[in-house]
Amino acid sequence: MSAPQPLAGLRVLDLGTRISAPFCAGILGEQGAEVIKVEDPGRGDFMRGIGPFDDGYSLWWAVEGRGRQSVTCNLRTPAGQALFRRLAEHADVVVENFRPGTLERWNIGPDDLPDRLVVTRISAFGQDGPYRDRPGLDRVGIAMGGLLHLTGEPERPPVRPGVTLSDYLTGVFAAEATVAALYERDVAGTGHGRVIDAPLYGSILRILEWTIAGHDRLGLVRGRHGNRIPTSAPMDNFACADGEYVAIAAGSDMNFSRLCDAMQRPDLVADERFATLDDRVANTDELHGMVAEWCAALEADEVERRCVDNNVPVGRAYTASDIADDEHMTARGDRVIVDDPVAGPIAQQAPYPRFDGRRPPPPRGAPELGADNAAVWRDLVGLDRAEFDAALAAGTI
Amino acid sequence: MSAPQPLAGLRVLDLGTRISAPFCAGILGEQGAEVIKVEDPGRGDFMRGIGPFDDGYSLWWAVEGRGRQSVTCNLRTPAGQALFRRLAEHADVVVENFRPGTLERWNIGPDDLPDRLVVTRISAFGQDGPYRDRPGLDRVGIAMGGLLHLTGEPERPPVRPGVTLSDYLTGVFAAEATVAALYERDVAGTGHGRVIDAPLYGSILRILEWTIAGHDRLGLVRGRHGNRIPTSAPMDNFACADGEYVAIAAGSDMNFSRLCDAMQRPDLVADERFATLDDRVANTDELHGMVAEWCAALEADEVERRCVDNNVPVGRAYTASDIADDEHMTARGDRVIVDDPVAGPIAQQAPYPRFDGRRPPPPRGAPELGADNAAVWRDLVGLDRAEFDAALAAGTI
Repeated sequence: MSAPQPLAGLRVLDLGTRISAPFCAGILGEQGAEVIKVEDPGRGDFMRGIGPFDDGYSLWWAVEGRGRQSVTCNLRTPAGQALFRRLAEHADVVVENFRPGTLERWNIGPDDLPDRLVVTRISAFGQDGPYRDRPGLDRVGIAMGGLLHLTGEPERPPVRPGVTLSDYLTGVFAAEATVAALYERDVAGTGHGRVIDAPLYGSILRILEWTIAGHDRLGLVRGRHGNRIPTSAPMDNFACADGEYVAIAAGSDMNFSRLCDAMQRPDLVADERFATLDDRVANTDELHGMVAEWCAALEADEVERRCVDNNVPVGRAYTASDIADDEHMTARGDRVIVDDPVAGPIAQQAPYPRFDGRRPPPPRGAPELGADNAAVWRDLVGLDRAEFDAALAAGTI
Repeated sequence: MSAPQPLAGLRVLDLGTRISAPFCAGILGEQGAEVIKVEDPGRGDFMRGIGPFDDGYSLWWAVEGRGRQSVTCNLRTPAGQALFRRLAEHADVVVENFRPGTLERWNIGPDDLPDRLVVTRISAFGQDGPYRDRPGLDRVGIAMGGLLHLTGEPERPPVRPGVTLSDYLTGVFAAEATVAALYERDVAGTGHGRVIDAPLYGSILRILEWTIAGHDRLGLVRGRHGNRIPTSAPMDNFACADGEYVAIAAGSDMNFSRLCDAMQRPDLVADERFATLDDRVANTDELHGMVAEWCAALEADEVERRCVDNNVPVGRAYTASDIADDEHMTARGDRVIVDDPVAGPIAQQAPYPRFDGRRPPPPRGAPELGADNAAVWRDLVGLDRAEFDAALAAGTI
């Protein structure tokens, strides 16, 4: 069961708070890197205090904090900064998401740290440019990256994607770039770690499809299209008899013909209103009306079954409860039990993706604040007992 | 200007179609890897035929196809399969998103290819499990990964995020895992390439915040909350006098107090209805009503300016036009001109993220179908003129 992990042997310092930088570090950790989270003494990561709570304990922290050790270090003091610089001598990567300039002000910027470190810097707006110093959070990245304007129904206000998407997306992009920089350092043998600049808005902008090209060449300013795509049909979410929603994506000729079979309406394939994708797009309302009527008469499970039987791409809008009950996710182990040191076993999403078909080992539970102080400051960095006790007494750690 | 690239020297074969696998390969390409796209002779990638079109040329293809070479190879024939196996001898990575089992049926599965290759496999449902053989597209991943149900207004049907999110997100996760596998191969020195299994639904599931933990421990089945977060306020999008929307995220005590300054309502800080985050959450409707009223009386630019002046996280819901005009994005070069071989210069999103503060070189434009056949099949793989001409004549390439 315990597969070898591709990033074993690397050490990552998570200076992040909230989601984006910690998520980046966590991905590396789930692939074998050792991750040490460096937190403010007494207070720790913001995520420790945000709901939902189980008996006062943050379940969101339990997820985002998993798979790492915790040490405390007051980076606002010269003594803490000196300690951190000593710790950095033992690391390969530092991931952070303070406002640009903060690390430099604390004398722990890239120039103050070993040249071989990869320093992965996530921020709302990036390390340079006129908005560099602006505050920003996930939502700001989604808005200014251009996705908010595209999400929602045409006649209604924009809607956010239902999770802190720019935080996570930036975290994954940053993790990829981090490993690329490590590859260069250790394989090309430059020995030099890169400084990575990953703004929240930029990750969103990068996945904006043809939005920029369409504006440049056609003067198009994309708007919201709800669940439709203006160039494809049938393609929508449909309400079923039990009130659940099913997404059906059957735009291609082949998928459309399969959907007609699923609906027991083979006549529609020959219907000239729907003969080509262009025809179907031109007559989307009529076509979707028929699919909607079909779905409305059946339970979601039944719509799904008939589509699957006919090879039509289909997916129910899964809830947390559907995820818990799904036979495929269960068979693949997509929910994993993480043993939290405070709350005990908690079902969470498993590490992703998977190497060589093996289930990755479950991450260790989110650490209590400073749980690894002794192991890291004494055993790894080499503080003697007197130094360690003094640092504790002074509130440096 | 032309910075060294961290993945220079690696060669990636893009066997993908549509978005997810090509995007994965493209990320590696934008960091220096050479990417060779292998396409069906005569037809090529689906993206070449999807709108929006500029004078018949797909602008979406121009974006997703950039940064790579194109060769043709009919993988449905033994001759094409044999050619592909020869090409694979020269590669480090194969990225694909056919249905599971397809490569094996074509005798080009991981067991048929050199052991040192990293084979990155994207699919709707993964390489094993009961739904393995089901068809699926982006929307299905968003639905069954659990994000669709969470996105939209509480009293209305779910809404898709406005781009093909599970395609892109899976592509980035897969790129990260690919580089991790290369790191292990070349640094740990195993010499062995991993097979990566990245299903679309799994990338969405991975970023589902506390959804699974909350269901497990509290029995919570999360629903849709529109633009609000049930544990934070003020946090929403607000309509301005000019009809534009502004996202304001000011949940913390400090940000709330700054927002009160921006609104010239310092009295609200002392208002007991809004004293703590819990109070603000309990009185969200009242609080948001006041912020909405303030925004409704001002143009979006002015709301943004006042928030920025007071250090409040704020972002307008940018359109393609806003992105084109934005001074920060312009200063940072987030729009890059890609020289397309068919359509000429097209503004697109720049490679992301950035290394050492340098602007990455603009990717080469999306190749015409088979544009690099001679360079790859003759010069790299070593077909002689007779073999090459015969392969062309037979439709193998």
